[in-house]
Amino acid sequence: MFQEFSEKGDPAASRPRICALREHMRAKGIDVVIVPHADEHQNEYLPERAERLAWLTGFTGSAGAAIILQDTANLFVDGRYTLQAADQTDADLVTCHDLIATPPHTWLTDNIGKGARVGFDPWLHTVAGVKRLREACEKKGAELVVLDENPVDAIRDDLPSAPLEPVSVHPFPFAGETPRDKIGRMADTIAEAEVDAAVLTDPASICWLFNIRGRDVAHTPLALAFAVVPANGEPQLFIDKRKLSIKVEAYLAQLATIRPPDQFEDALGELGADTARVLLDPQLAAWRIAADLEAAGASVVEGRDPVALPRAQKNAAEQKGAREAHRRDGAAMAAFLAWADAQEPGSFDEIAAVRMLETCRRETGERLEVPLEDISFDTISGGGPNGAIVHYRVTESTNRVVADGELLLVDSGAQYRDGTTDITRVIPVGEPKPEYKRHFTLVLKGMIAVSMARFPKGTRGVDIDVLARGALWSAGLDYAHGTGHGVGSFLSVHEGPQSISARSMQALLPGMIVSNEPGYYKAGSHGIRIENLILVCRPEVPDGGEIAMHRFETLTLCPIDRRLIDPSLLNGEELDWLNAYHAHVCDEITPLVDEPAVRDWLAAMTAAISR
Amino acid sequence: MFQEFSEKGDPAASRPRICALREHMRAKGIDVVIVPHADEHQNEYLPERAERLAWLTGFTGSAGAAIILQDTANLFVDGRYTLQAADQTDADLVTCHDLIATPPHTWLTDNIGKGARVGFDPWLHTVAGVKRLREACEKKGAELVVLDENPVDAIRDDLPSAPLEPVSVHPFPFAGETPRDKIGRMADTIAEAEVDAAVLTDPASICWLFNIRGRDVAHTPLALAFAVVPANGEPQLFIDKRKLSIKVEAYLAQLATIRPPDQFEDALGELGADTARVLLDPQLAAWRIAADLEAAGASVVEGRDPVALPRAQKNAAEQKGAREAHRRDGAAMAAFLAWADAQEPGSFDEIAAVRMLETCRRETGERLEVPLEDISFDTISGGGPNGAIVHYRVTESTNRVVADGELLLVDSGAQYRDGTTDITRVIPVGEPKPEYKRHFTLVLKGMIAVSMARFPKGTRGVDIDVLARGALWSAGLDYAHGTGHGVGSFLSVHEGPQSISARSMQALLPGMIVSNEPGYYKAGSHGIRIENLILVCRPEVPDGGEIAMHRFETLTLCPIDRRLIDPSLLNGEELDWLNAYHAHVCDEITPLVDEPAVRDWLAAMTAAISR
Repeated sequence: MFQEFSEKGDPAASRPRICALREHMRAKGIDVVIVPHADEHQNEYLPERAERLAWLTGFTGSAGAAIILQDTANLFVDGRYTLQAADQTDADLVTCHDLIATPPHTWLTDNIGKGARVGFDPWLHTVAGVKRLREACEKKGAELVVLDENPVDAIRDDLPSAPLEPVSVHPFPFAGETPRDKIGRMADTIAEAEVDAAVLTDPASICWLFNIRGRDVAHTPLALAFAVVPANGEPQLFIDKRKLSIKVEAYLAQLATIRPPDQFEDALGELGADTARVLLDPQLAAWRIAADLEAAGASVVEGRDPVALPRAQKNAAEQKGAREAHRRDGAAMAAFLAWADAQEPGSFDEIAAVRMLETCRRETGERLEVPLEDISFDTISGGGPNGAIVHYRVTESTNRVVADGELLLVDSGAQYRDGTTDITRVIPVGEPKPEYKRHFTLVLKGMIAVSMARFPKGTRGVDIDVLARGALWSAGLDYAHGTGHGVGSFLSVHEGPQSISARSMQALLPGMIVSNEPGYYKAGSHGIRIENLILVCRPEVPDGGEIAMHRFETLTLCPIDRRLIDPSLLNGEELDWLNAYHAHVCDEITPLVDEPAVRDWLAAMTAAISR
Repeated sequence: MFQEFSEKGDPAASRPRICALREHMRAKGIDVVIVPHADEHQNEYLPERAERLAWLTGFTGSAGAAIILQDTANLFVDGRYTLQAADQTDADLVTCHDLIATPPHTWLTDNIGKGARVGFDPWLHTVAGVKRLREACEKKGAELVVLDENPVDAIRDDLPSAPLEPVSVHPFPFAGETPRDKIGRMADTIAEAEVDAAVLTDPASICWLFNIRGRDVAHTPLALAFAVVPANGEPQLFIDKRKLSIKVEAYLAQLATIRPPDQFEDALGELGADTARVLLDPQLAAWRIAADLEAAGASVVEGRDPVALPRAQKNAAEQKGAREAHRRDGAAMAAFLAWADAQEPGSFDEIAAVRMLETCRRETGERLEVPLEDISFDTISGGGPNGAIVHYRVTESTNRVVADGELLLVDSGAQYRDGTTDITRVIPVGEPKPEYKRHFTLVLKGMIAVSMARFPKGTRGVDIDVLARGALWSAGLDYAHGTGHGVGSFLSVHEGPQSISARSMQALLPGMIVSNEPGYYKAGSHGIRIENLILVCRPEVPDGGEIAMHRFETLTLCPIDRRLIDPSLLNGEELDWLNAYHAHVCDEITPLVDEPAVRDWLAAMTAAISR
């Protein structure tokens, strides 16, 4: 099993730890300490040693920060994690805040006193993040203090060591472009930006560029590394050689100078000695890197990670891989959903569902000869009220049997060598209430509206987000998360810069993969989310039209539960889309299914719906 | 008549004028001169003396700029004016550019040489505009030169004098709030912004604040003035007393210190002598004002004009006025449209339509005892291919008879004491082609989608713009303008900060009025636009919902031509909206119509449509 169900981040442990941190702060003369959920790479999944926020506060979500003072401990989480944070932390000790309404820097401005010394670890905050912290401190006459040792690490005697998992080569048939060609393209981009070099800090960018993958963090096949890519000359790759086999080291040595990670700061100094102009992404790069560069004499030019856009626009091989990964994953999902439907209502629990789904993915992968490498994140398996916790992670203690009449929300994904998947379906256990059907159908209308959208060049995520929400808004409902995130190619399941949300200013470009996942959550009752991955297609002029329009190709191939659909709430176009989608799912998935019961289930679940 | 049809901006005149300007530039040692369509207040409608761009280049549109060098003359206009600019200028002399794709500052960066001296009039460019120009010049090592005399004025011997039209008081029943209360609110806002005073440069803000109106520019009832509003103490109003009757002067003297306009710069100096912190809107205020303040010792704090939001959120009296103005205007429109339908196809021209519409508005206003004060802009009356020129202004030479089978697009508006209107309808002359009906119905679907929208607090124009475009995009069509602009209350027909477009980051707040005007234009063939004004309502929780949602109240009351609608392209919800709207129009407008023929026309045009 990739997923385990133990309680992480014990709330009871957090009191002595915060107490120890406060003692350390007094000793160091620091009044305020910021503990972000972050590592040196701004990874989403952190190596165990970087899980400082969970260790300190008990909160195990994938985004957040704490601000610790002598008299208060404050945790900042977004709407996805409001309920989870309250569950996982000690309310007498930790005050939870909304990360969006009151980000840490805003809270600081409102709550710190003049002259306060605010400490931060310069490897865990980005250039942009430190700018916000600095402005917040300046407004109140407080002092932002660069800490030379992480204050949480300083009080731990059980600090795990850095991961040293093996690196593998991502084969050309999956990557579709040689690393040499990619590096050449990057060098051109770097030269066009009129800089001498780019410093890459995002392991996903480095893995994409060199066509390598690793296992240093959970669920995302990353090898942790830094890189310096010059406009002219050989890149430098900072990676622990203990992670490289002789073969992989030889492969990488043809592409870059391999140096140990502890020489990364030396290399920044060398760029400074050359008075180089260095491109750095202020949203991704640790502040320490910019500080090192500038201290050594380099000029930092802020700009987007030059790899981000090329990585986001999947080439033909990556698109082909994504289609194959989604067919395989669809067959696994069909087996899982058929299993769930065959169970007596009230006879299985959330963990059983997670285990069965992982089993279906493993077995289907083995049978179809492309094994499951990992799940792309811990499966969210929320029955009844747990379904309303947007990023719920089931543990032994939260696990519950899904009762007759409840909904089970299952959001999961897989990592295969040819692609990364992410899918959410809702399973009605027993007969669903009419209210559930109404909510489900409103969410479905939004999902279909995005799926059917056509849009001209330059259209951004912000421009189409409303399509997913319109039907819910008309009914006085909404969901407190974005509509979609970018997805990598056997890389991160949450990949930028593309997304669909009210904040997404990135144009949707051909080859980008995004999720399409509107939802509705009623706290204490039920949660609904329907998620497909969709691929931005090259623009084409529709019949009778004049302007080339993009459309989305739906990659995810899995039935949407017909028992939850109220067809009277769908208009003709929506029903046509649904029936065509189901017919396509049936055509694509049936040949990959071997069990007759699953085939029958698939045929029944994808049969045309009429009003 | 408010509208006249002469040719403005004779292209033939522009050659000797540009020649004279170049001679003046050589004499002054200036290599590049920027001539924006702007006055000291960034007004949309300029006093005649400020129409420098039209005088110089021939282009009479409401937005644009020219950049004149010794060897090239460049005109920058947006998508609305592409065709018009080509028609109005001498192609051998003037090169037209797309204002959005290549704004003047971008063009400068790409085209000026190192050391070039680029001259600008500091009263005609905003703080934000000069920042862009400065960056453009710095990139190329060019020098941005503040001109002490406007270079176009310097070469004119026919410079018109500044307008001195009478100022009137805007009565309380229409304004709904006393100027004393408004000034008190503003002083609070200014104090909250932690500044000592705000400098107001937008005449619409000043007229709203003091409850006055004027006639200094065409179509917008503005009295041109500047004002300084302190956090504590009496405002200062800089206005020519020749515009004030004894009564109006006495009224204003109770509210502010009245000073002549030529003391405005002295007052900026006085703020400097007090080392005041002064709020200035960088998007609205002339750069010269900021320069004067800073030179004198004041600190400029950039922020939005504090009047903009209160002015945009119409109070109950203004909303009531808007409804009454729209009923009256709907009656006038019904008379006009009934007249147009009664004409033999091919028997009337664009100017005849403009004259008849203005006549209907005048007569209806007189009959209903609230006279037409002005039209809110020159009526766009475009027959056949002229309908595709988005901001077409008919002149004696462009005027054409609307032929049988053509469409006539009429976009017009009125200024009444109780409200400002803006409406577009398309009249089919004779039997419309099926292609026209398809295009019209696709545009209508977008207009209806916006009209029906519900949306939560915080939703911005950018979030809902796609609703107006979705049906067109699906058909491979689009329009090259925003979906809607803010509208004032007996003030500017184009009012910020609210709008509906891909760039509109302002939340839609209760009381705001915006237009809803998707369109479709086929160059050389036909133009379609359907425009209603809509009012943002207070959020309410829909039945069965949880979250309060805004909706729009449609203010405009006028039939949408049923002969242009293909009901088979409308879904049930759209058809229900249309029929309900038409029934409402019939109920509201019929009592205001006296002519039986118009009543009959109204009844027939608003009868329910079925599929």
